[in-house]
Amino acid sequence: MPRSEAHLSIRIDLTTGRFGPGKAALLRAIGETGSISAAARTLGMSYARAWHLTEDMNAVFRERLVDTFAGGNRRGGASLTPTGEKVLEIYESIRTEAEQAVAKELAAIDAIRG
Amino acid sequence: MPRSEAHLSIRIDLTTGRFGPGKAALLRAIGETGSISAAARTLGMSYARAWHLTEDMNAVFRERLVDTFAGGNRRGGASLTPTGEKVLEIYESIRTEAEQAVAKELAAIDAIRG
Repeated sequence: MPRSEAHLSIRIDLTTGRFGPGKAALLRAIGETGSISAAARTLGMSYARAWHLTEDMNAVFRERLVDTFAGGNRRGGASLTPTGEKVLEIYESIRTEAEQAVAKELAAIDAIRG
Repeated sequence: MPRSEAHLSIRIDLTTGRFGPGKAALLRAIGETGSISAAARTLGMSYARAWHLTEDMNAVFRERLVDTFAGGNRRGGASLTPTGEKVLEIYESIRTEAEQAVAKELAAIDAIRG
């Protein structure tokens, strides 16, 4: 299979909301850093936006994806729930498998780019 | 395979630019209506935005995707070039095949939505 520089960016559209690359990156960064504010800094995102995206993804699924722990202020720690770990894992599988499944078409479209 | 209400929204990221659902819908509508302004109306999009998206997708690929024909004003007819037809066809294949390839994971993520 020819290697292509083309990649897929995938968003999952559910009846209750959406989950795509931005939320996936934030979820991964929260898991790695243990806080929403540190995750926001890692991604070059404002704290307000990271907080909003976190609340938004918590609302898409039956259970929360992120648990927050109050410190002395609202910027305490955060961690992924088992549901959060699962959603991130499934999203990564979808991304990898979808890209593999269409490798030939991606190479074809890459061949006609400018 | 369980049917799921979850769907993929796919954008292709190339080194020269991006091609996703918005541009694909516009390309399809231009092919169907024969003009950028009619396509814009069909999609509930402003003419300015449709024009900008068309110029943008023409710049991503080596050859134009859309040819425009001057009438008495700049809102003359438009049609897909062979490259435009090909890009749309490949994009549709990618969407269909990717979604089929991850049907099981889509059903799994749909099962934990709210």
